[in-house]
This record gives sequence, structure tokens and C-alpha cells, in this order.
Amino acid sequence: MEPQRPFVIGIAGGSGSGKTTVTRSIVEAVNLVNVTMLTVDSYYFDQSDRPMSERAQVNYDSPAAFEWPLVFEHLNRLRSGVAVEVPVYDFTTHTRSSITEPAHPGAVIVVDGILVLHDPDLRELLDLAVYLDVDDDLRFIRRMERDVTERGRTTETVVRQYLTTVRPSHVQFVEPTRRFADVIIPHGGRNTSAISMLVALIRERVALATTEPSTG
Amino acid sequence: MEPQRPFVIGIAGGSGSGKTTVTRSIVEAVNLVNVTMLTVDSYYFDQSDRPMSERAQVNYDSPAAFEWPLVFEHLNRLRSGVAVEVPVYDFTTHTRSSITEPAHPGAVIVVDGILVLHDPDLRELLDLAVYLDVDDDLRFIRRMERDVTERGRTTETVVRQYLTTVRPSHVQFVEPTRRFADVIIPHGGRNTSAISMLVALIRERVALATTEPSTG
Repeated sequence: MEPQRPFVIGIAGGSGSGKTTVTRSIVEAVNLVNVTMLTVDSYYFDQSDRPMSERAQVNYDSPAAFEWPLVFEHLNRLRSGVAVEVPVYDFTTHTRSSITEPAHPGAVIVVDGILVLHDPDLRELLDLAVYLDVDDDLRFIRRMERDVTERGRTTETVVRQYLTTVRPSHVQFVEPTRRFADVIIPHGGRNTSAISMLVALIRERVALATTEPSTG
Repeated sequence: MEPQRPFVIGIAGGSGSGKTTVTRSIVEAVNLVNVTMLTVDSYYFDQSDRPMSERAQVNYDSPAAFEWPLVFEHLNRLRSGVAVEVPVYDFTTHTRSSITEPAHPGAVIVVDGILVLHDPDLRELLDLAVYLDVDDDLRFIRRMERDVTERGRTTETVVRQYLTTVRPSHVQFVEPTRRFADVIIPHGGRNTSAISMLVALIRERVALATTEPSTG
């Protein structure tokens, strides 16, 4: 009998919905070394063939901005127990680094991204699909704070990008994937309760994986 | 040290959203004798002082139709480990029976109802607030099927009641309580995944409750 394959959780939700925070909380709470974190943001296409002035015009919230075949290939490999080399993306220059970072297959794989639930093939790889549903104004504020402090943008460029691409793409591509979620975590909920629930499920699955008899 | 009090889960959602089905699935999956099921539908006010013709006009989807102080009192008692006598409501005659049914305090209490998340005091008694978010047309169809087969109504009376009271009350009272949920289970999700998660959490809480040392 094959060893049990990893349990794969997808965390979707609009920009600023708290995907990274929820993912980190899960990893910390599960308290296991063998949890793999993967973010679809790592798979943005490299924009180095465009002049810098054009790079800011790209719609980074459209499915077209991501290298989906590579996301699928990597998640599928990790799911089969094979390590992968994840691209490293620089959000300041919109380019992919020449270095990569290894990801090792854990008993649990958490993959996050605004469009994790967009692609039907990718959805098939998920055992549990989670959508973080946070009010649009709060998401914008979080995004602005992050982009200004962590990604060297100005308030003006954040607003312009938000109105021209982020918001329209959210309405067109991200929000409709809510339908594919198994569970929705809303703003205003006691998020710790929702995270406790995810963690309980993960612990149960990992316990099952390690206690089931292996007949080689 | 006091024995650990029960873990209380509230299951809310509009008429026809599948509250009873989800509650039953949880109880079956947890496979514990000590799960208490409570439905707020049992606490409808008795309408026997109105003539039969008037009873159908009552808005049964408004918070005013339920005896909230009794719901609160009963849930609070169960939560403290004390059994209660739950009213029995007859949906055909809109009356409360002279008999009651005992509810014994389990390690887990699941309470369902369209307005379980409406009352702030009641919300305080919940350890986990769940909202079932099902599309309105599908909810209507389920409600119609149930009311015709189980409650002796005709399609015409179901439609009239739906348009005059059920739908307006859903929009006014039920749907806004979505905000108070810790977790939302959408239609279209693989409901078994969401139920597995609830069950994992319940099992974890019950295991904790029975393995923690009691110093009496």
C-alpha cells in the first residue's frame, strides 16, 4: 500500500483578505514540521522583458498573470511526495529571481492565492477549499498598508492600480470562486474559531496518516 | 475543578438551507451518544388563541415569533449540565403541544434555527457559529417540497407565505446574521468536507473534555 498522500488545503480570497495571516496561524497552531506552505504569488510571470514604466500597468490580479501550468505541476509533485524548486518573485521590480527556494512535501500542504480556486484542474488537487470573505473596504486598507510599507509603493499608485485592475479583476475573477469553496471564513467571525476548526481537521488527518498500518 | 462545560455549536441559515440535514450529519458522524440536538423551531409561540384562518398570516420568520427567553434559559441550563423539557410544536396547527420532550446535556450541544445568530445574548452562549449559505431559489424549492410533503401545505399557500413573510424576513433578519458567523458553509461546496471539519473540531473538543484531569 502506498503511504497516504499529503492533505492539501487551498486558501483563497481577495487581495488583503488575510490569506497569509490565516496560513501562518494554521502552520503555527498545527505545530508540525511537516506542513508545506506554497503561495501562488511565487508564480507570477517575470516582467523583465517590459520597460519598468509598463510593468506597473500589468494586471496582476488576472489569471493571465500567473504561470498556472507550473503551479499545477509543483502542487501535483508535492502531493505525490516529491520536492520542488519554487520561483522567487520580486514585487518591487516585478521580476522572477534567478534563485529558487526548495519546498519539501509535508503531510499537509497549504497553498494560498487570490485565484487558487480559479483553475478547475488545480481545484481537483485540493482536499479542502477555503475562501476568506472580507469586506472590500477593509481589504483595500490592508492592501494599501502592505504595499506602502513592504513593497515600496505610494498611496497614489496603490489607489490607481486598485481602481484600474485589482477591483475589476476581483469582481470578475476572484469573487466568483467563492462558489467553489467548501468553507467560507467571514470577516467579523471570531477567526480563531475558524482556524481551530481547520487545525482540528488537519490534526485528525495527520494522525490518521501516521497511525494507519502500512503494508509496504 | 468543575467538569468541562459542553461545547455549543449554533447552525443558522435561511429556510431550506439544510440546517437539519447538516445537524443530523454531524451527530451521525461524531458517533457519540452525548450530543444534544436542539432546534429553535421548538420554541415557536403557541397560536391557539387565534382563529385558524389568522394563524397562517403570522410571520413565522420574524424574531417576534419565537419565545427567546425560554431558548436562552434552556440553552444556558444545558450548557451548565442541567436537563430541560423542550416544547413540542405542531406545524400543521401552529400550536404548542401539552407534552414536552426531555433534552439531556451532552458534551456537545448543536442548536439550529434560522435566527440562532440573531440574539446577542444567545450568540454569547455559542462556542462556534455556523451559517449555511444556500442560493435563494434552491432554498425556496427545498422549503416547498418539505412543507407540502411533511406539513400538509399546498404549493399556493407556500408561495404566498414565502412572498409575504418568509422572503422579506430572510432579507431583513436572517441574511444579516451571516456577519456573526465564525464559518460559512456555502452551497456548491463539497458539504462533506465542511462537515468533516466540524466533526474533527467536535471530536477534538470531546477528547479534551474526557482526557483532562478532574481534581473534583
